[in-house]
Amino acid sequence: MTELFDAVDIIRTKRDKGTLSPEQIDWTVDAYTRGVIADEQMSALNMAILLNGMSRAEISRWTAAMIASGERMNFSSLRTPSGGVKATSDKHSTGGVGDKITLPLAPLVAVFGVAVPQLSGRGLGHTGGTLDKLESIPGWRADLSNEAMMAQLQDVGAVICAAGAGLAPADKKLYALRDVTGTVEAIPLIASSIMSKKIAEGTGSLVLDVKVGSGAFMKDATMARELAETMVALGKDAGVHTVALLTNMDTPLGLTAGNAIEVEESVEVLAGGGPEDVVELTVALAREMLAGAGIHDADPAAALKDGRAMDVWKRMIAAQGGDPDAALPVAKESEVIYAPADGVVVGLDALSVGVAAWRLGAGRARKEDVVQAGAGVRMHAKPGAMVRAGEPLMTLLTDTPERFERAKEALEHAVIIAPEGARPAQELILDRIS
Amino acid sequence: MTELFDAVDIIRTKRDKGTLSPEQIDWTVDAYTRGVIADEQMSALNMAILLNGMSRAEISRWTAAMIASGERMNFSSLRTPSGGVKATSDKHSTGGVGDKITLPLAPLVAVFGVAVPQLSGRGLGHTGGTLDKLESIPGWRADLSNEAMMAQLQDVGAVICAAGAGLAPADKKLYALRDVTGTVEAIPLIASSIMSKKIAEGTGSLVLDVKVGSGAFMKDATMARELAETMVALGKDAGVHTVALLTNMDTPLGLTAGNAIEVEESVEVLAGGGPEDVVELTVALAREMLAGAGIHDADPAAALKDGRAMDVWKRMIAAQGGDPDAALPVAKESEVIYAPADGVVVGLDALSVGVAAWRLGAGRARKEDVVQAGAGVRMHAKPGAMVRAGEPLMTLLTDTPERFERAKEALEHAVIIAPEGARPAQELILDRIS
Repeated sequence: MTELFDAVDIIRTKRDKGTLSPEQIDWTVDAYTRGVIADEQMSALNMAILLNGMSRAEISRWTAAMIASGERMNFSSLRTPSGGVKATSDKHSTGGVGDKITLPLAPLVAVFGVAVPQLSGRGLGHTGGTLDKLESIPGWRADLSNEAMMAQLQDVGAVICAAGAGLAPADKKLYALRDVTGTVEAIPLIASSIMSKKIAEGTGSLVLDVKVGSGAFMKDATMARELAETMVALGKDAGVHTVALLTNMDTPLGLTAGNAIEVEESVEVLAGGGPEDVVELTVALAREMLAGAGIHDADPAAALKDGRAMDVWKRMIAAQGGDPDAALPVAKESEVIYAPADGVVVGLDALSVGVAAWRLGAGRARKEDVVQAGAGVRMHAKPGAMVRAGEPLMTLLTDTPERFERAKEALEHAVIIAPEGARPAQELILDRIS
Repeated sequence: MTELFDAVDIIRTKRDKGTLSPEQIDWTVDAYTRGVIADEQMSALNMAILLNGMSRAEISRWTAAMIASGERMNFSSLRTPSGGVKATSDKHSTGGVGDKITLPLAPLVAVFGVAVPQLSGRGLGHTGGTLDKLESIPGWRADLSNEAMMAQLQDVGAVICAAGAGLAPADKKLYALRDVTGTVEAIPLIASSIMSKKIAEGTGSLVLDVKVGSGAFMKDATMARELAETMVALGKDAGVHTVALLTNMDTPLGLTAGNAIEVEESVEVLAGGGPEDVVELTVALAREMLAGAGIHDADPAAALKDGRAMDVWKRMIAAQGGDPDAALPVAKESEVIYAPADGVVVGLDALSVGVAAWRLGAGRARKEDVVQAGAGVRMHAKPGAMVRAGEPLMTLLTDTPERFERAKEALEHAVIIAPEGARPAQELILDRIS
């Protein structure tokens, strides 16, 4: 078969700051999926894209080509009680430390009759994976057939499960390549990777939680904003109502970073309690998802307080084989870190906590690693809290105590304590992009 | 074995415009040669180097690491008649159309007692290869053992042969990768590729003929100058006396572009005749090579006129199995292109002629192609010549007449004829960098 284009010409075009035509982009994504473009050619092109950028039109076409590389889901068979087509809404977070928001959020939004098909991933590196967290619940299964997923969306309204291999296979291949070639951090490639999967998932509306700060993928607010704007534009191009919140990730979300301990905290939120920041972000994202689905008069905060969200949560966990009332795994060993002085906590570095939780066994360094359900970091004082010397700041949890040492190294400069009277200035939701 | 560095860290450093440490560079070249750095990682790094550049110190270390990847030749056993160590000198051209200079130059320099170990390559694309040209001489062999090469350098003084696989193997692997990943045109990589081979060849002094113009690898004078300066600096760093001439390649050198027809023209030059530009460049490069070897009072022009260079040529060809007096192969078919109007030739595009010769069968598109000894382009009028309408401008030569059509297409706009009185402004030697 004669190929339409030549890979070297395409690499040269982007290398020399040119624009790829729609046909060139379609061919590139397809030829890479077919193995006609070799890995070493794609990685050179990725580096050229990272350094020279892509226009909005190029990114949009690239995203469409990645969607076209696989199957697309279709939720139009879901019905409301009155027989209409059920609205669907989905959330994506770019990943942060202690980010368990999907857990309370999916059942909360489902309370209001919106279907929430939350296809999620496992963690790699210092940010946790939603599936890893849920897998600490005895019996819970991440892998569902398409039929089981549709049935659960119809009956329960919310599902959090693993994405099938059929969605955007080009992205799967490309992401693995970017991971080993230093080309992960290219905004056009990040945006098209996220959005191709989310659009292929067939949701009607989408809310993006773009994290910025030390514990985020994007440390820099300008880059995070550019990523958010790019993704919102891609959603619009594909006809998916998309809104992004830019949120702070200099400090971990909530008081836990791990797996089972994050489920525990999520259940607290679903029971109407839990840390203020987790509740605030859950409610804000729920409002956006509901608005995207056309529901503007809902009161998600009330649905957390009155147990409606908890009801959906329990049904959602049970539908996937989990026992929502079972005791969660507990780490075998713990070690406490104490405050060295009196004062106010003004900083609690998200990256340090994330790396510590990871080193304690909550995350994985390689795809094939197994995570410890009970491992992680419990925080006892968040920014703004008054502490006295000798009071506990954090508890480190692991099944394998030889891990404490390196976890403590990561936390050495994590907490900043200032004299009384100092006030940390941290807003959680930094901006909204629509 | 634990590796000293991580490939992704190194890619990221260069991607983010950082500087690689000497240890990182040594490891990178070595790990790539060992296969620890994968092709897709090296191509991403190459693209980052192409777009973000390298410092002089980085290029110098990279070159040294490539040299260290293989064996180094040593000519210190060569002796002058009086028993001293023979001086060695080598020339490298970045490649042009009709560039047969190595053929008369090597024996010419050897006339003055300097050893000329000219390790050469085969052609790929529109610029011819020195070995391809010489292989049109019946019986001549490019492949010599190290012992045969040393013996010939001692006895004859000049050798033009294929480089062994043991010299800079990292460069060999890297060049093949750059060729398919759009990363050939990176000055740090070009300079280190050329200089690593030349320094590994062990010459005492080196003259670089850096071509600039349509038929050259570098179309742009600024880039060509940067390449020349970089290579001269690399030579200096390695203790090899290095000079570069920047020479014009908008017009082919001489009146022939092909294989046997270029040998024929070289023999004319060695017989004291031949085209002015070929003689001028041969003599200029000979002076530089001789000066590099410490000989400042030689008269190379005289050695062309009086037959001394021809004597060395004949001995050099015969030493490698060739018959210097044998008839050269002649193409089976020819076709003439005529002047469309009266006037002065003011332009004769090197790239067009090179592509035409290549399409006629003088060059190869893939490494495994076989070249036609007799194929090529004979030019009858160079810039500055007066022509009358209907006079022959060029003769196209090939064994396979179906090739004429595409060769003529390449030549469609190759010749520019202006009204009488116009004068082409073309200097051959543009600058000297030392």
